[in-house]
Amino acid sequence: MVIATESVQEVCASAKRAARTLATLDTAVKNAALEAVAKALQASTREILDANGLDVAAAREAGISAALIDRLTLDRRRIDAMAAGVREIAALPDPVGELLEELRRPDGLTIRKIRVPLGVVAVVYEARPNVTIDAAALCLKSGNAIVLRGSSSAAHSNSVLTAIAARAAESAGVPRGAIAHLSGGHRDELVELATQSRYVDLIIPRGGEGLKTALADHATVPVIYAASGNCHVYVDSAADLEQAREIVLNAKVQRPGVCNAAETLLVHRDVAADFLPVALAALREAGVELRGDERTLEYAAAVEVAPANAADWDTEYLALTLAVAVVDSLEDAIDHIAAHGTGHSEAIVTRDAAAAHRFELDVDAACVYVNASTRFTDGAEFGMGAEIGNSTQKLHARGPIGLRELCTFKYLVEGDGHVRS
Amino acid sequence: MVIATESVQEVCASAKRAARTLATLDTAVKNAALEAVAKALQASTREILDANGLDVAAAREAGISAALIDRLTLDRRRIDAMAAGVREIAALPDPVGELLEELRRPDGLTIRKIRVPLGVVAVVYEARPNVTIDAAALCLKSGNAIVLRGSSSAAHSNSVLTAIAARAAESAGVPRGAIAHLSGGHRDELVELATQSRYVDLIIPRGGEGLKTALADHATVPVIYAASGNCHVYVDSAADLEQAREIVLNAKVQRPGVCNAAETLLVHRDVAADFLPVALAALREAGVELRGDERTLEYAAAVEVAPANAADWDTEYLALTLAVAVVDSLEDAIDHIAAHGTGHSEAIVTRDAAAAHRFELDVDAACVYVNASTRFTDGAEFGMGAEIGNSTQKLHARGPIGLRELCTFKYLVEGDGHVRS
Repeated sequence: MVIATESVQEVCASAKRAARTLATLDTAVKNAALEAVAKALQASTREILDANGLDVAAAREAGISAALIDRLTLDRRRIDAMAAGVREIAALPDPVGELLEELRRPDGLTIRKIRVPLGVVAVVYEARPNVTIDAAALCLKSGNAIVLRGSSSAAHSNSVLTAIAARAAESAGVPRGAIAHLSGGHRDELVELATQSRYVDLIIPRGGEGLKTALADHATVPVIYAASGNCHVYVDSAADLEQAREIVLNAKVQRPGVCNAAETLLVHRDVAADFLPVALAALREAGVELRGDERTLEYAAAVEVAPANAADWDTEYLALTLAVAVVDSLEDAIDHIAAHGTGHSEAIVTRDAAAAHRFELDVDAACVYVNASTRFTDGAEFGMGAEIGNSTQKLHARGPIGLRELCTFKYLVEGDGHVRS
Repeated sequence: MVIATESVQEVCASAKRAARTLATLDTAVKNAALEAVAKALQASTREILDANGLDVAAAREAGISAALIDRLTLDRRRIDAMAAGVREIAALPDPVGELLEELRRPDGLTIRKIRVPLGVVAVVYEARPNVTIDAAALCLKSGNAIVLRGSSSAAHSNSVLTAIAARAAESAGVPRGAIAHLSGGHRDELVELATQSRYVDLIIPRGGEGLKTALADHATVPVIYAASGNCHVYVDSAADLEQAREIVLNAKVQRPGVCNAAETLLVHRDVAADFLPVALAALREAGVELRGDERTLEYAAAVEVAPANAADWDTEYLALTLAVAVVDSLEDAIDHIAAHGTGHSEAIVTRDAAAAHRFELDVDAACVYVNASTRFTDGAEFGMGAEIGNSTQKLHARGPIGLRELCTFKYLVEGDGHVRS
């Protein structure tokens, strides 16, 4: 057990000191530290399960929902998966020091743009203890110090996980303070963390709207909000309807609780009669609750579809519920997405290259799909390895936040007595 | 004259509508629009000078300083320079649509990362009317709509300049609302603008600390603060001392009122006796007021140097004043910069490659210089063409903010019925 005796500011200042060393640590040292963390997690399985047991017992006592208790609960398999995740991050290329651009000016001055760590990254998250290790490993690999702030419901688990990771990393040459953990006890702590702009370079909240609002009201540290996704699948008049059905089913059903799952289906009126009865039946059969606009209800036939109300078009269900509307044109679909989308992941299904191109150009979202499921918006699927979240912001990081997105850059300018005239 | 009858929100909403069209406008249309703006500025010289005359007269009546009146005043030469600046921006490569990355996943899914405009950029600035045209041209070329908010002291000039630019751009096919101007009348307007997060994607303030504080307190729209620069030149024990003297002089004297000018000189103790008497004399001769630490005073000889106080190390003079300290080592210089620098531009003068490398690695700033003046931190000097400011933030844009920094990206993902398993 780690007893937190330092103030939030002391933890952050110590992380900043560590960050200066971390920024220039050799890739080999970072990878060895990650391997040490993975080993230590597996070697400490008993200790982790004991601490987790305390959190789970307290959650049961507090009458927390079964779904949340499942997210909170660790077992040997989950600990092994954490260790495997750390090893996968060790195997990724080191983003630090990468040469992004190089130019030689006419006067002989050379300018190199080099990727460097941000410095100190704070991650604020809710019940799942595996985020502790994921986030710590991503920050370590990208040369950043991390300040973790989990929820109080996972305090024992997170404390032990952080202590194990920090100790293992230190034994491999990572500076003390590079992996730090706040107790998660009280709201003031969050506000204090969010205003440490002298020490903290970025906060990434992973959690619900309450957390986002609290940060938006108080943060002076830059924040990248991990996304909410009101994602659409648009079935164009030129769609391959069988492909469309499979894509809609996958986007809605394969994992409905995540931000890249589809929440609204838009169907061009010319194919509504052919497409909707079959698609709605398949969705219903997969357990999806359907909410349709007037024209959708006409095509529902024997399928149970409730009338959609205005709020449905703006709702991220994160559940087996889907809003469905018929649109008159590609332009109407694009307008609907502009009005209701959150800029996360938007898909068109079409065989018409011009329609696909128009959709790609006009839809303003992190990820725009043609003939593919929105579920691919994910660091691993994008070949980035692990991710720390998905951004729907336009500045800095858009889409999956991986190792490179945890970095900034600097310009190195070399001359030989160059002065400006 | 344009009479502002729309509310701030209406102006921003209209800019957002324009931005959807602008985002996919052909390069040729944007360049023709920029040429039309340049032509219109020159053809309307009389009208611009008349409006500017009203602002200048009001400023004189209000007893504004001569320096500020000079910044406010336009003449034929300055208008020609604005037009030439617009033509230079037209000649730059279009950043929009640039392919940043492309990958094909093992399952055949293709992912392209493409540069796209941010959408609507608001620029808040102080007296200089030429910023109106610079900023509008940069945003137009990068496919962004712009909402300009100048100061009330330049209201007539800015109104006329915006109206001329907007009219010329529209005549060439740019959508109405793409170049908009707020009256600059009252403080509420700034707060209203800074909270239009539904319509405005980025605010760039160009102005003093008061403006920054006002935005930090109220903005819900993302802000990139154009930088303040407490820049250092460090003369290493292995420096070419003649080169060092020229670099320090240039960094301090060539244009002291800008953010990339040096404010503190750090000198390694081993070369202080050789370097300081000569360098201080040269600086003093160039009119620089010197403030030295104890050891600097020892080496000042006949040169007039005032004792520095603690505040001097944190002061951005933006004037012919320089703080000077002797340090014991490269590490001490780096520590001093970490404690007092603002992450803008930092220089080392040395012939020792290892020292140069250490300085480049360890100094956390947008631009790190070896044997060159800090004055090169500038979009034009970096080969980016014009810039809209310099960022000392680490997220999104660091260093000069040019056309590419006014963009974000999106991922275009194409499959053939791909679903996630």
